Amino acid sequence: MNPIPDWLRNYRASWLAGDAVAGLIVTVMLIPQSLAYALLAGLPAEVGLYASLLPIVAYALLGSSMTLAVGPVAVVSLMTASALQPLAAPGSADYVQLAVLLALLSGAMLLGFGLLRFGFLAHFLSHPVISGFITGSAVLIAVGQLKHLLGVQAQGENVFHTFLALAQALPDTNLTVLALGGGSLLFLWLARKFLAKLLVGVGLSAKAADMAAKLAPMLAVMVSTAVVAAWGLDRSHGVPVVGAVPQGLPSLGLPAFDLSSLQALWLPALLIALVGFVESVSVAQSLALKRQQRIQPNRELLGLGAANLASAFSGGFPVTGGFARSVVNFAAGANTPLAGVISAALMALVVAFFTGWFHALPQAVLAATIIIAVTGLIDLGTLREAWHYDKADALSLIATALGVMALGVEAGILLGVALSLGTLVWRSSHPHMAVVGRVPGTEHFRNVDRHQVVTEPGLIAVRVDESLYFANASALQDRIEALVQADSDARHVLLVCSAVNQIDTTALGVLSELQRSLGQRGMRLLLSEVKGPVMDRLQGTDFGRRMQGQVFLSTHAAFADVAAHKRE
Amino acid sequence: MNPIPDWLRNYRASWLAGDAVAGLIVTVMLIPQSLAYALLAGLPAEVGLYASLLPIVAYALLGSSMTLAVGPVAVVSLMTASALQPLAAPGSADYVQLAVLLALLSGAMLLGFGLLRFGFLAHFLSHPVISGFITGSAVLIAVGQLKHLLGVQAQGENVFHTFLALAQALPDTNLTVLALGGGSLLFLWLARKFLAKLLVGVGLSAKAADMAAKLAPMLAVMVSTAVVAAWGLDRSHGVPVVGAVPQGLPSLGLPAFDLSSLQALWLPALLIALVGFVESVSVAQSLALKRQQRIQPNRELLGLGAANLASAFSGGFPVTGGFARSVVNFAAGANTPLAGVISAALMALVVAFFTGWFHALPQAVLAATIIIAVTGLIDLGTLREAWHYDKADALSLIATALGVMALGVEAGILLGVALSLGTLVWRSSHPHMAVVGRVPGTEHFRNVDRHQVVTEPGLIAVRVDESLYFANASALQDRIEALVQADSDARHVLLVCSAVNQIDTTALGVLSELQRSLGQRGMRLLLSEVKGPVMDRLQGTDFGRRMQGQVFLSTHAAFADVAAHKRE
Repeated sequence: MNPIPDWLRNYRASWLAGDAVAGLIVTVMLIPQSLAYALLAGLPAEVGLYASLLPIVAYALLGSSMTLAVGPVAVVSLMTASALQPLAAPGSADYVQLAVLLALLSGAMLLGFGLLRFGFLAHFLSHPVISGFITGSAVLIAVGQLKHLLGVQAQGENVFHTFLALAQALPDTNLTVLALGGGSLLFLWLARKFLAKLLVGVGLSAKAADMAAKLAPMLAVMVSTAVVAAWGLDRSHGVPVVGAVPQGLPSLGLPAFDLSSLQALWLPALLIALVGFVESVSVAQSLALKRQQRIQPNRELLGLGAANLASAFSGGFPVTGGFARSVVNFAAGANTPLAGVISAALMALVVAFFTGWFHALPQAVLAATIIIAVTGLIDLGTLREAWHYDKADALSLIATALGVMALGVEAGILLGVALSLGTLVWRSSHPHMAVVGRVPGTEHFRNVDRHQVVTEPGLIAVRVDESLYFANASALQDRIEALVQADSDARHVLLVCSAVNQIDTTALGVLSELQRSLGQRGMRLLLSEVKGPVMDRLQGTDFGRRMQGQVFLSTHAAFADVAAHKRE
Repeated sequence: MNPIPDWLRNYRASWLAGDAVAGLIVTVMLIPQSLAYALLAGLPAEVGLYASLLPIVAYALLGSSMTLAVGPVAVVSLMTASALQPLAAPGSADYVQLAVLLALLSGAMLLGFGLLRFGFLAHFLSHPVISGFITGSAVLIAVGQLKHLLGVQAQGENVFHTFLALAQALPDTNLTVLALGGGSLLFLWLARKFLAKLLVGVGLSAKAADMAAKLAPMLAVMVSTAVVAAWGLDRSHGVPVVGAVPQGLPSLGLPAFDLSSLQALWLPALLIALVGFVESVSVAQSLALKRQQRIQPNRELLGLGAANLASAFSGGFPVTGGFARSVVNFAAGANTPLAGVISAALMALVVAFFTGWFHALPQAVLAATIIIAVTGLIDLGTLREAWHYDKADALSLIATALGVMALGVEAGILLGVALSLGTLVWRSSHPHMAVVGRVPGTEHFRNVDRHQVVTEPGLIAVRVDESLYFANASALQDRIEALVQADSDARHVLLVCSAVNQIDTTALGVLSELQRSLGQRGMRLLLSEVKGPVMDRLQGTDFGRRMQGQVFLSTHAAFADVAAHKRE
């Protein structure tokens, strides 16, 4: 693999304008988001900034998407908080150190999966389950931020506890905080709802208006910071602010870790890697398709792995490709990952020289930006669609969302994986099978339930419409046994294997057992239309040897053999 | 459901002799095994006896196998020990109480799964993974028993630590214990290897000889107990013995439990339920097939659930259908679960009147019976077969076995489930797809790579040979994108859906996205040969509406439409 990525080697001057504009706009979104998501993760503000520098550059070198914007994102920040809160006090040095370790572990896992070409890991989660997970997380995040809007302490184990705690703390509400936070929330909501239309009304193009509306959070941050700083509201009215943010680029290196932290963090790290990968790939894929570009899942694993390792080495926390910033990056005209590199360079300037400006930034305004950002993630459309189309999928979605809200984000995602795989196994365990007969006067064989066909007395011919493996092998056995017990004249059982692309060891065992048990009853097992690669592998087995002379190229030949058998 | 099971309502007098003989022989196996497996689980001997009374009767009423012998088994006893050792001191009252709770939870879960008709749960584990799990557990159990043979204290976190601890403890070996234990081990090994042949040599039938050889453990128990009692070796030479076993039937009822025990035990209980169910169903199924009977997985869940609840209510620990005793029960001529009921009645007599006889039974001899029993479970045949047939399956087997030995039985089974499902998703994520063309002069369409067929310029026709769902939907998308990008003349993409039995919500989303993105490039997505039930569900969706006029009954009609399109 060439160390210089394709996009850089073939860079065209005409791409630069788009990349520069997109880089600038994304930076203006990224500044409040990186601070807000650090707050959400329970980390000091600078950790969010650090996670927005090197990770972007690392992804640019290894990732396959041209427009993905990597950095801190809401759901992964929530997962970080949920992994670390049992282990250390939020904001403490230990807590930061564990967040770095979490990024290191996630990064190493992603990189390892990429080297092993485990891109198929993305398929462990179905879309309804992902949608339920994101929706549940969004609600969990939004509810968790309400305390910052009120300026109270209220923390619950789950959404319902948190609501209760909020209700109890309501009398302690700090009205100044509420005014700042509530005001920002209202402004951001109105901006999202109407600002773009308004700007179009005053003559901006639809695209430019859309883009400008995305800058509302930065505006809220600037105005509210100025207000707090001007009146000294943090001191006079107890408004919680971001406070001192260390100025200067992060030093590189890793803190020391002990084995017990590794044991506590490997599972959360794996879940963050999986969720981050799935979320990121789906954004990258949908953007790539719009420009007829392609995403390579295994390269995405490498890119996101490198990004998380870079985050860990520069004092950051877990990152992935974010939905909102990527969409803006794409719409603003980003042509290559250079847009990201430009925004990383701009962020570096901020970190090196301007962190003092964030001192008076009220936490309530960051909370408002988080709430507005995550409510955009709540996805009822998928639920509605799944409900009409496939109840099982809709129930998985609801269960995952409720799981996240009631049990937390880790238990929720594990539940989601379990539901996805449970549905897969359940569906797989009912393979489609059809008893077939001959279409009169032809060599074609069709389902007896659907066509006027002729069967051969004494022969049960079954077509299996799926590959045979552990999840469905015993269903085949059950079906054959039922057919044999229902037909006392049966002397031959034929499996038509035209749709069997694979037979795993479990299914081989079942076929072998079936042949043996039919044999004990004086019956023969026959196979027809076995595909070449399947036959090649069967031939080396005991079962293959015992089947000698009972495997037919065509179903027609098998029917003929049975007829000949009867005449003997 | 009739409360009286079929076998009892239709009981024939001619079945009684077989049931009685089998019940007696199984009892003679069950006495030493129930004591030994209680020892293995870290429980007092009487708990093993209690688990061999009511559970058998409960299974007889609800289960579907005619010959399964339910009760304490090696692997589940090991899992019990592994679940409880972190929570209480083995043998203590707390420990016993937690074991009862574990049986209660497993039983409730099994019963719940049965009522929900979750028999498909058995398909979560592939045969190679089960084989690896059993083999790993057998090694773990056998190595864990060696300390009893030597009469030393040696416990390790895994097989390798245990070996190390044994080596260090070797100088403390109690030679009397070693003589008793080693002698029994040698005797049992010789008995298994040669006794049956010897008995055939002196005139017994093969079947009777086989049966008699199974009684060797009882003989070892009787002789060694007599030796220890006669010379008072427990006191004079420090030989650990079973000691006082309370006489009398267990009282019914449940101890009180707190929430924290439930939280600690739900996962082990779930794993015990899953493993117990899978192990039991596979024994029951293979025995049933020999007599052309059938097993109903959902009834097995009910039967095993009731057995575990019965165990919990009578002071026992988790039980399931055991391999060795079921095979003997079958071979001894058991016709119905009455054989089990008879053996439960005999066990009740033992518990009520004869527990004093076990006082001087040396633990070393029980350890020897465990070692001999579990070495019979080590299954290298499946490994050899899988290695030749399917390396992925063989590697899953080895990984699961090593996982059990190195990480313990719970981590091992979780690894096994993960490997089974990982293989399933991995295989599913590569569905078979073929580009098809027309067999000249016919309306048949075949794979272009295998047949001499004619394609239609501008049309890419792809046949998908599997149902579409989340694990393989994106593979379809990738393949179509690759084909489209390779053929700049393409204007139409046709999916031949003759093998698609189902389209889940995720795949529906992918198809919808594909149609949209092809549309943006001025291309059409067409479908042909969509099955009735699939089409019915598609019609209610937005995608279905957008596809109006682009779905064709036959591939022939779709080709004709494309040709007509070009002439316009």
